[in-house]
Amino acid sequence: MKEFELIEKLLRPLAGKNSAGLADDCAHFGGYVITKDMLLSGVHFFADDDAYDLARKALRVNLSDLASCGAEPFGFLLGLALPKNTGDEWLKKFTAGLKADIEEFKFQLLGGDTTMHEGELAISVTAIGKAANPITRSGAKAGDNIFVSGNIGDGYIGLKKRAGKYLLPEPRIELGKNLHGVATACIDISDGLLADLGHICEASRLGAELDSRAIPISSKEYPLMELITSGDDYELCFTSTANEVKGCYKIGHMVAGSGIKLDGKQVEPRGYQHGA
Amino acid sequence: MKEFELIEKLLRPLAGKNSAGLADDCAHFGGYVITKDMLLSGVHFFADDDAYDLARKALRVNLSDLASCGAEPFGFLLGLALPKNTGDEWLKKFTAGLKADIEEFKFQLLGGDTTMHEGELAISVTAIGKAANPITRSGAKAGDNIFVSGNIGDGYIGLKKRAGKYLLPEPRIELGKNLHGVATACIDISDGLLADLGHICEASRLGAELDSRAIPISSKEYPLMELITSGDDYELCFTSTANEVKGCYKIGHMVAGSGIKLDGKQVEPRGYQHGA
Repeated sequence: MKEFELIEKLLRPLAGKNSAGLADDCAHFGGYVITKDMLLSGVHFFADDDAYDLARKALRVNLSDLASCGAEPFGFLLGLALPKNTGDEWLKKFTAGLKADIEEFKFQLLGGDTTMHEGELAISVTAIGKAANPITRSGAKAGDNIFVSGNIGDGYIGLKKRAGKYLLPEPRIELGKNLHGVATACIDISDGLLADLGHICEASRLGAELDSRAIPISSKEYPLMELITSGDDYELCFTSTANEVKGCYKIGHMVAGSGIKLDGKQVEPRGYQHGA
Repeated sequence: MKEFELIEKLLRPLAGKNSAGLADDCAHFGGYVITKDMLLSGVHFFADDDAYDLARKALRVNLSDLASCGAEPFGFLLGLALPKNTGDEWLKKFTAGLKADIEEFKFQLLGGDTTMHEGELAISVTAIGKAANPITRSGAKAGDNIFVSGNIGDGYIGLKKRAGKYLLPEPRIELGKNLHGVATACIDISDGLLADLGHICEASRLGAELDSRAIPISSKEYPLMELITSGDDYELCFTSTANEVKGCYKIGHMVAGSGIKLDGKQVEPRGYQHGA
């Protein structure tokens, strides 16, 4: 079975009462939110990606989950499975990258686990944030406007060029914190706009209508369908009763029913599945 | 550099204020404790170990860390890097193992991340427990007695036979909860009695004296030094002003100074290093 099936059929039935049914970016309890993303060589990054940026990317994909809940970064645990031949220079660069983002995001290392092994590099980060009332995926109402916080598809373009957001996402922490009382539902775009908006639709039991001309993109070089079905943007997609949200782009609105329409035509809420 | 050096030189300087300097089994914040252990194929288990028991082992090595802090299990996040050819039967057994221990330990699945990849199986568990005042490694005083909760070296014997505690540790959750107000310091024995008692010595800035005849063992077939320097026992080792603790074995006492003496002779606080 595929990841999706594994989660639906075998893991979701095990989800506990604080898990939000595994339907949000973070679980929450006692004023904290928690999320975990594993990055694997050959899946989420190239083995020769720069260690400094890779460390930051590993933190930032998790920070982006915190942002989508409107949480303030608190701390993280780091699990490292390192290839036996990992050199000192690589380790120094990697930990320098951690240090840079600990400072930039007022984050802290809380603990972890490090093992050398025969296999490839695997990085597992568990990130904890503070949020008294985390924003979820399930609060959207029919009529709410849909916003994104920045250009869609930059992760895809970056992957092609091995540059930009693909290498170094910009988690929207400040925006996330400002969305309390503004966003009715929120998600970070890790699997692609359509797939992630699809998660809001499912959790909120609604459909969405999008206006293709309103979706901000960096380049007309690539087909729009590629840009909105590809991952690693790490922008926020949220719903709100507001008509304008500073710095964000209104791209459509929520409707009764299910599924996503682009310019009136039903589209598949698919995305890049490099995990779930 | 080795894991130990990596942690000392590059990671410990990044440790935040809630990390207890990476010196405890768990970090703690707001009434919760948190710990993370990664299990790797070929390092922590054999690729053909039974999936049902492997799932439980992955939870239990983390539950053992919660036990050492005197915490009550709350929930866990699960990171899975699965080989592409993982079969449905394996996944069903693995998730059935999770379910069994979720029920046994009143645990809950909070979230996680699942990815199929070209590499070997890696299991990353982050476990959260509740403890208002977690027991640490640093509270031992000179004169405190040293106790262990069960036979030492059973993990080693189990590894040789691929049976017993090596396959399925018994986390001492109930004992841990009862050690509040009794234990001055506590650790779970994952790397071997000497290595882990050495961590209490370091954190408490003391030495330890052990009586070899008092150390409970299952079999005289193996040299004592093998049994006390091998990992995977998952018994608790703790210090206390008490002379007796029900169900536990008094094996020595803490002294001013540093290092560990066995029957009056200095021994190396070494252990099995399959991670840190």
